[in-house]
Amino acid sequence: MSDVEVVALTGGIGGAKLALGLQRVLPPGALACVVNTGDDFVHLGLHVSPDLDTTLYTLAGCENREYGWGRRDETWTFMHVLEELGGETWFRLGDGDLALHVERTRRLGAGETLSAVMDDVGRRFGVASRLLPMSNDAVRTRVQTSDGELAFQEYFVKLHAEPEVRAIGFAGAAEARAPAGLAEVLASARLRAIVICPSNPYLSIDPILAVPGLAAALRGRGVPIVAVSPLIGGRAVKGPTAKIMRELGIETSNRAIAAHYGDLLDALVIDEADRLVELPRGLPTQIARTLMQSIDEREALARTTLEFADRLGRRG
Amino acid sequence: MSDVEVVALTGGIGGAKLALGLQRVLPPGALACVVNTGDDFVHLGLHVSPDLDTTLYTLAGCENREYGWGRRDETWTFMHVLEELGGETWFRLGDGDLALHVERTRRLGAGETLSAVMDDVGRRFGVASRLLPMSNDAVRTRVQTSDGELAFQEYFVKLHAEPEVRAIGFAGAAEARAPAGLAEVLASARLRAIVICPSNPYLSIDPILAVPGLAAALRGRGVPIVAVSPLIGGRAVKGPTAKIMRELGIETSNRAIAAHYGDLLDALVIDEADRLVELPRGLPTQIARTLMQSIDEREALARTTLEFADRLGRRG
Repeated sequence: MSDVEVVALTGGIGGAKLALGLQRVLPPGALACVVNTGDDFVHLGLHVSPDLDTTLYTLAGCENREYGWGRRDETWTFMHVLEELGGETWFRLGDGDLALHVERTRRLGAGETLSAVMDDVGRRFGVASRLLPMSNDAVRTRVQTSDGELAFQEYFVKLHAEPEVRAIGFAGAAEARAPAGLAEVLASARLRAIVICPSNPYLSIDPILAVPGLAAALRGRGVPIVAVSPLIGGRAVKGPTAKIMRELGIETSNRAIAAHYGDLLDALVIDEADRLVELPRGLPTQIARTLMQSIDEREALARTTLEFADRLGRRG
Repeated sequence: MSDVEVVALTGGIGGAKLALGLQRVLPPGALACVVNTGDDFVHLGLHVSPDLDTTLYTLAGCENREYGWGRRDETWTFMHVLEELGGETWFRLGDGDLALHVERTRRLGAGETLSAVMDDVGRRFGVASRLLPMSNDAVRTRVQTSDGELAFQEYFVKLHAEPEVRAIGFAGAAEARAPAGLAEVLASARLRAIVICPSNPYLSIDPILAVPGLAAALRGRGVPIVAVSPLIGGRAVKGPTAKIMRELGIETSNRAIAAHYGDLLDALVIDEADRLVELPRGLPTQIARTLMQSIDEREALARTTLEFADRLGRRG
């Protein structure tokens, strides 16, 4: 039987911070993260899952806080020699991080599913929460830009998210299935909330919601679905969320974020910096400090979000 | 046009030491090494070429002198994390070393030949000598032992060469072709000697000679072929040469080494410790110090071997 109380949808850095806060304020095993795999790609022949790994390292307490991605106490000998060899160095892989990519690639090649691998890896790293890739099938985020159509990592890392975004698509999404673990997690009698973490809605959360049946399964579960806005004062803490919204002709506001998630959402947590800006109509809103620099701030935002969801749940 | 003066057949550690000596006493570009690839294997999904890499690192001056394999100033973060992940750790891969395996695997997967990859890598590492894999086709050394048939690395690294050897075979050898580079190297008008380095004759040199046509091409070239014996006082400096000879019922002597190479050989360099032991009959023999601890000793043995070959060449 699953003891899951909260399902969190998350991308990488910003989302993983709230996931850590949730993990810390919940009992062990009470958090399940459904993680974006639209950024996954094969690099140097290795299967790299940037958002899964950032979430894994963050929940395992071995994340690199300086970079926001990769591992703490990392070494870079591999990259130095790869550069001498004339290899591709635009995507930086630390020596310890590489072990996960090599081992995952080997296990996927031997026929294991991504969710089985991440389940095992999470356990070995001592992560109490469940890490669910949004799908075991390949869904690849493609970005239509002023420089043509780009694979996500080309756009995001190689070109530093500089090209102007015209549209975003998720190749393979139509045929993708949610991993078996999701139904099990949603079947938990203790489930009290589904939290959409403050990741980029267009690049990190939309791929998750593009998996057929996944949004309906979340909606159908009947617990409050609460998003935490990635905007603070109409801007993103990190990453190109606001830039992309402008490029797509979307107002950089919480009203637009709420409209984007639409019917999926029961409520929105917004930053106190945006309290005076016009709020989404008809949607319960909670004001909080959403900038999560310290561990305390992550826990506080997690508590606020869950208490808010619990109040909505009792009303619902 | 090739400027090659010496072709050296070599395996890993011991052979690479003499190859370095030869490189240092010859003009740049005058040495070509034909290297054993029978030890190559796919490990963690990566194509690993132990003897090619030991030779490469040794000739590039970045070899790990403590271990005899791998790179100098290496870090081991990958192995530490791989162990946490429950991955296979019996074959140790340093972080810098790994860059070569990942990049080689990627390039082979993209359709390049092993010899093209090693040519490029040698150039990038500033190696003046040519590094020729004995074949671009897969030849895999299989060891029949008291523990059953084993792949080379299982026998050598995983089981520390402990099982008793009953026979040694080279799977795929019958279909293997010598790399195109070999004919070019042998066509060099300056060629003066072919040197069989003091590698294990049964495990490191025999796979090279098992490539169809390769031994005949060497023999047919008409320059002296000189082997440097791997035995010192009837024992091997390092590795299981003497142990394997005993297990195969072969006398651990230079006479047996000479008999093993047979008609291929024009002469043999033996260690001064073996000067009083019965010498191979009818085969020119040179006594030298063959223990190559220092760089000076490597150069000295290379000079002695080449001078010996030159004397034979003038006589022939």
